[in-house]
Amino acid sequence: MNPAIESSLACWHAMIASGDTGRLRSLLAPDCVFRSPVAHQPYRGADRTELVLSTAAAVFEDFAYHRRFANGNDVALEFSARIGATELKGIDLIRFGDDGLITEFEVMVRPASGLQALGAEMARRLTGRL
Amino acid sequence: MNPAIESSLACWHAMIASGDTGRLRSLLAPDCVFRSPVAHQPYRGADRTELVLSTAAAVFEDFAYHRRFANGNDVALEFSARIGATELKGIDLIRFGDDGLITEFEVMVRPASGLQALGAEMARRLTGRL
Repeated sequence: MNPAIESSLACWHAMIASGDTGRLRSLLAPDCVFRSPVAHQPYRGADRTELVLSTAAAVFEDFAYHRRFANGNDVALEFSARIGATELKGIDLIRFGDDGLITEFEVMVRPASGLQALGAEMARRLTGRL
Repeated sequence: MNPAIESSLACWHAMIASGDTGRLRSLLAPDCVFRSPVAHQPYRGADRTELVLSTAAAVFEDFAYHRRFANGNDVALEFSARIGATELKGIDLIRFGDDGLITEFEVMVRPASGLQALGAEMARRLTGRL
């Protein structure tokens, strides 16, 4: 994987570990696309992607990454977390440009109870802001 | 990736492409575990894993695999499909033993409408059989 992407991934993991997403915007391509585990329609642009990702980072408790899968400029990051008493597993599918900027970010979670808890909490925090 | 795993993956893709899951059992370790996109509790053993995977294969329409991500003996396979008019995306997280047999199979799908359609159709076909 190219050094710019490795650097972005290291920065991403440091942000998630610290809970400080202040540098998130510097990792996003201006036209990046976010595909939510809940909604069918993607969110387009760095503004919306930053808002959704930083909100999600604040919603998850006991967040931990596990396996990292790679394919060229793309990675799949397996994670576990909980929302209140509801445990969930998930995957971040991230596509990078050669410059290390994130161009696509797609998230899937399981099981249904976890998706429901995530959707409810994200809606509570984001309604009217997207 | 070791040749036994490449061979299993080729067999898996051939099965999915043909719709004939008759050889599925030969790919599963006896104690393999299936983690559903819907249910929190895993399904344990080759019998249940075979039943759930073969049923799911029959539920999805226009099923297509896209990116393949790798990590040692594990792969993440991105897919798209529909159930009736409902489109969905998903990921198969598959762990193989060195012998090429599947030991863990975990599935996640998005968006919520796709997960709901999948859960309803799987429940309709599997109630009382697991």
